[in-house]
Amino acid sequence: MNIAVLTTGDELVNGEMSDTNTARIAQLLGAWGYAVRESRAVGDDEAEIEAALHDMTARREVIIGTGGLGPTDDDLTARVAARTFGRRLVLNEEALAQIRRFFEQKNREMHPRNEKQALLPQKSVILPNRLGTAPGFYLRHGNCDLFFLPGVPREMIAMLEEQVLPRLQERSGGSTPLQERILKVFGLSEPKIEELFVQAPLAQGVQLAYGVDFPFVHVKLRASGSEAGEQLDRAELHARKLLEPFVFAVGKETLAANVARMLTDANLTLALAESCTGGLVSQMLTDIPGASRFLERGAVTYSNSAKRDWLQVPDEILRQDGAVSRACARAMARGIRHSAGTDLGLAVTGIAGPDGGTPEKPVGTVFLALSAADQERVQGYRFSGDREQIRRISACMALEWLRRYLAGES
Amino acid sequence: MNIAVLTTGDELVNGEMSDTNTARIAQLLGAWGYAVRESRAVGDDEAEIEAALHDMTARREVIIGTGGLGPTDDDLTARVAARTFGRRLVLNEEALAQIRRFFEQKNREMHPRNEKQALLPQKSVILPNRLGTAPGFYLRHGNCDLFFLPGVPREMIAMLEEQVLPRLQERSGGSTPLQERILKVFGLSEPKIEELFVQAPLAQGVQLAYGVDFPFVHVKLRASGSEAGEQLDRAELHARKLLEPFVFAVGKETLAANVARMLTDANLTLALAESCTGGLVSQMLTDIPGASRFLERGAVTYSNSAKRDWLQVPDEILRQDGAVSRACARAMARGIRHSAGTDLGLAVTGIAGPDGGTPEKPVGTVFLALSAADQERVQGYRFSGDREQIRRISACMALEWLRRYLAGES
Repeated sequence: MNIAVLTTGDELVNGEMSDTNTARIAQLLGAWGYAVRESRAVGDDEAEIEAALHDMTARREVIIGTGGLGPTDDDLTARVAARTFGRRLVLNEEALAQIRRFFEQKNREMHPRNEKQALLPQKSVILPNRLGTAPGFYLRHGNCDLFFLPGVPREMIAMLEEQVLPRLQERSGGSTPLQERILKVFGLSEPKIEELFVQAPLAQGVQLAYGVDFPFVHVKLRASGSEAGEQLDRAELHARKLLEPFVFAVGKETLAANVARMLTDANLTLALAESCTGGLVSQMLTDIPGASRFLERGAVTYSNSAKRDWLQVPDEILRQDGAVSRACARAMARGIRHSAGTDLGLAVTGIAGPDGGTPEKPVGTVFLALSAADQERVQGYRFSGDREQIRRISACMALEWLRRYLAGES
Repeated sequence: MNIAVLTTGDELVNGEMSDTNTARIAQLLGAWGYAVRESRAVGDDEAEIEAALHDMTARREVIIGTGGLGPTDDDLTARVAARTFGRRLVLNEEALAQIRRFFEQKNREMHPRNEKQALLPQKSVILPNRLGTAPGFYLRHGNCDLFFLPGVPREMIAMLEEQVLPRLQERSGGSTPLQERILKVFGLSEPKIEELFVQAPLAQGVQLAYGVDFPFVHVKLRASGSEAGEQLDRAELHARKLLEPFVFAVGKETLAANVARMLTDANLTLALAESCTGGLVSQMLTDIPGASRFLERGAVTYSNSAKRDWLQVPDEILRQDGAVSRACARAMARGIRHSAGTDLGLAVTGIAGPDGGTPEKPVGTVFLALSAADQERVQGYRFSGDREQIRRISACMALEWLRRYLAGES
């Protein structure tokens, strides 16, 4: 099927924002075997939008448009679509009711301007939006199916999956999706992983691709056809053998969510003591619903006095070894575990920079410590990167420690 | 000038990569007053590239193309451009010499394949690439100037600045950069802000645009020409009057960075007590270099025992009012301030969901409290959205409380 994407918004052509919607759309459609042939972005400009719609409807079977469905004057999509395809702009009662319902559910008052969002081209079908105020719409012009979705990624993606994809499959008479298995890896570089697969290649019919999500590498295994499932099962086994113990998650799983699940399943409690990560580990774990089941408390101990009061770190360690030291990390992990009375105590202390580095302890020096009833572990690292990267890789490494402990790998 | 961007590469239309070059080009050109009207991306597909070039040269004065200049077979740009504009593909000696030089300088051997990169459409002008092997080229077709650059961002940007921009200025007879002033707003919706500007419009010559960065709205004031600076100064004053006290930052400033600066300037210390935000406030503040100057400690008190031990929240409050209550928030703010011995204590407690809501305290119920020597403030909110949104807006509101307190606005 000949599919094109049209994104609208001044921010996309004046450089304020990179267009990520196009990639998300292409990914999602690609996963179902539909290739996007072309994507275009134009500003909130009637003439440009109209010219693009004219040209694209003449050359494509399916157009997916995003953006310009909002309540403000620079949201032009419905009006321009109506004019381009010679239709009147009419108030769609169903759309209006949906917008009203959205505000009611949120106990928010509906601004009169939002009524504008219910003005759709005649004979177009509303595409309900359960996550936001802007309903999308679908219309057919000649041989071209046009789907107009909001620009807000999460709303757009949900509507694409739930409402556009089924219509595409109807039109194309079904499609066998390209299947993908993603292994998320922490601790091996992409070149290193490539090398491993060169030495032990995958079976025929399974393609290999890579993605990076700092500090992680995503290994993507892809296959299509009726055998795809079995092929990917075998390929995943092969890849896991090759990459163990560096695979921390599969598919949509995340490191934090897996650690949360493992802690809950093992019925273990955790307390955190963070210095250089400043609450990042705690924030990542509490992003997961139900974190209260295992996280008893977390301490962000920037000051020495906080390390003394809450973690019982001995003065002498702070004086002699310093707050960024193997001894301090150990004391922090023990201290938080005892003061919280949890099964596990995890501590991070280090120098995230840009200031605070010394010749012996340069920026990037980080110590992790894990305290448990059955074991205690302390290790020093020297991470590179800017403040944000050092904080992020430190927090991820702390979570990885938990994962390996809970998986019995350490 | 009527400018369009064409990026080529399968990775751009199959969703493996988001196209960031378009935004970089638009930013750089925008800073010089040149607006990009349209951007397109197509795969490494001769027919698609040719169709795009045909259509775009008919409608634009300037086309900037990126990608497809590499040595491999899927790098098609030069060949397709030659065919599209009816020119022969000829070996450009100057380009070949430049490629040879590049490899010599790097003491690397030149692969025969790289000679392909010197094959350019007849009568095109080479655009040297000092950072990579792929030379770009420039040609004129009809009234349209076409510039073809490599897809590697740093090479592309350098060539755009050094070689394309001067030619654009020549063509446009010089240009004055477009200036922009961004006011970041928290607490007013986009429709509400628009309404205010309708009631009190900006002076002639200043354009107004909006952007959203949940939970914030960005108000953008733009002007060009010799008067731009003064026009924007006046417009900013006008907008500030209109939007006070909801403007928390200007331009590249962020809420967290401004709060950090204000705390440092005022030489005040802060301690945090977070429940539902689970360390997010602390993480946002410690993202800022030098946070250790004002942040003494932070407590993530998920459990009641943590609230008792570290924040001295009375049992009776936890029993009678519950952990998510006005009384508990106040006690948490007082408690953290006293245990840390800081000037300020800030507390957040609430229900981020998806579970834990009750009829009296539905998901989204959040209490904030600020304790200082000269005042104490507690307030309840009912935020809407998913867990992530509720956590984020709660954390931003907590930072906004600090900003207003430090600005003497509350």
